[in-house]
Amino acid sequence: MKLATLRRGGATVAVRVDSDTTGTIIDGYPDLSALLTDPDWRSIADNASGATVDLDGADYAPVVPHPGKIICVGLNYANHIQEMGRDLPQYPTLFAKFKEALTGPYDDVIVPAYAAAQLDWEGELAFVVGRQAYQVPEADAESYIAGYSVMNDYTMRDYQYRTLQWDQGKTFEKTSGFGPFLTTTDSYTFGGTLVTTLEGQVVQTTTTDDLVFTPARLVEYISHIVTLQPGDVVITGTPGGVGHARKPGLYIQDGQTVEVTIEGLGTVRNTTIVK
Amino acid sequence: MKLATLRRGGATVAVRVDSDTTGTIIDGYPDLSALLTDPDWRSIADNASGATVDLDGADYAPVVPHPGKIICVGLNYANHIQEMGRDLPQYPTLFAKFKEALTGPYDDVIVPAYAAAQLDWEGELAFVVGRQAYQVPEADAESYIAGYSVMNDYTMRDYQYRTLQWDQGKTFEKTSGFGPFLTTTDSYTFGGTLVTTLEGQVVQTTTTDDLVFTPARLVEYISHIVTLQPGDVVITGTPGGVGHARKPGLYIQDGQTVEVTIEGLGTVRNTTIVK
Repeated sequence: MKLATLRRGGATVAVRVDSDTTGTIIDGYPDLSALLTDPDWRSIADNASGATVDLDGADYAPVVPHPGKIICVGLNYANHIQEMGRDLPQYPTLFAKFKEALTGPYDDVIVPAYAAAQLDWEGELAFVVGRQAYQVPEADAESYIAGYSVMNDYTMRDYQYRTLQWDQGKTFEKTSGFGPFLTTTDSYTFGGTLVTTLEGQVVQTTTTDDLVFTPARLVEYISHIVTLQPGDVVITGTPGGVGHARKPGLYIQDGQTVEVTIEGLGTVRNTTIVK
Repeated sequence: MKLATLRRGGATVAVRVDSDTTGTIIDGYPDLSALLTDPDWRSIADNASGATVDLDGADYAPVVPHPGKIICVGLNYANHIQEMGRDLPQYPTLFAKFKEALTGPYDDVIVPAYAAAQLDWEGELAFVVGRQAYQVPEADAESYIAGYSVMNDYTMRDYQYRTLQWDQGKTFEKTSGFGPFLTTTDSYTFGGTLVTTLEGQVVQTTTTDDLVFTPARLVEYISHIVTLQPGDVVITGTPGGVGHARKPGLYIQDGQTVEVTIEGLGTVRNTTIVK
């Protein structure tokens, strides 16, 4: 099952995606954040029989627009770590993005000129929590995951490295394209290819089964620190190929488009506007 | 004006503190997070005429229990930075705590044994946002602050330093005592003394006007990255004297009590229970 949050008439609606071109409104829930707080969200979505919507030209909101927390994982692709000559990490590197950083999967990303010097891409696999998880063992962890989506973890490298802590370069207002769909766990085969392009040129590519810390391991690890709530989002890290690691550095310019595609999950496409 | 969130009969209530021993319930708002979303929160609190509550033996919840975000500032006390022989930073170091880490100002802090090896104190001045702030200049910033409170920014040093990013050592479930009051900006004179004690021995002391980045500067800086929402919390950093910086390190043990007092704002007092 694929789900989405669409903007319609000044509000949003939660939608079950029935085909490439049509969906069904899940009445009573303004978005997937609201839907996921209902323990019966799967059967509610499965049985929804609201109005039919045309997905051609639909206006997609961030797929889960109001997560209580967004946890980002750094340094998580084995091929990238090993090609840099580093050992695989013993523990996941965790930091945060705030929900105000989210934007729709096809929205323009508006960047203030003062933050536009070193704009970089990070294509990432995101997962969304489906029920409350605290001190969950890895073996049970998948049942706590609602599904998967795509994140364009747009990064201001200069802000990221102003201090030792990265968060401020990762959470600029409405810069992280998120969606277009939440593909539920039962409908997603883990391991498809992730491809990021800048102006149509491939800049990152990997298979998503190369993660050092899988989604299940991350649920185990994080839930031994803090409770994961329905609708919380975990972004699992980016592979090699970011612009900042090149010599010379390659950064996103005003007017340029970044696309992130994950096989089985869809494409996020954002154009940058500096002003 | 001082405000609080109290637990009563399985729920919580927002309260105006009228004296050391009595308060008035602010009807219609279950806690200060809910109250602060109302643009008229000051006059609503000022004019509240609900039931009188006895504050002797009252059960205090985290004063603002559901912030949309909690932003932590590191390395922010000039005396501590200079005594370490470092230059004052040009930019604030920002990281995050999740709301699930909050606990009441007098609650016991329950720590899982696997996270209890290096428990440390960090007494901190917190401020709470009173209205939406985006790209606010420093000169206007104070009007966006609802008020001030005390945070026991309880820290698992081993988790903090497992990776380069500190967040995971700062956000363990229900470990950060927060309160007891929100003292509104007009009732607080900035610059009072902060004192942290462990088992009654003073371990940290400073005046809060020694901050490199004042609350107004932080509102300006953060709001140029992301929108601050009513009820969001910023924790302004801790002075010298933490246990991890001592030789040998001094850590909080099972059964020990940490108190953080800020002149004019009150005291947070939490006892650690490892299990």
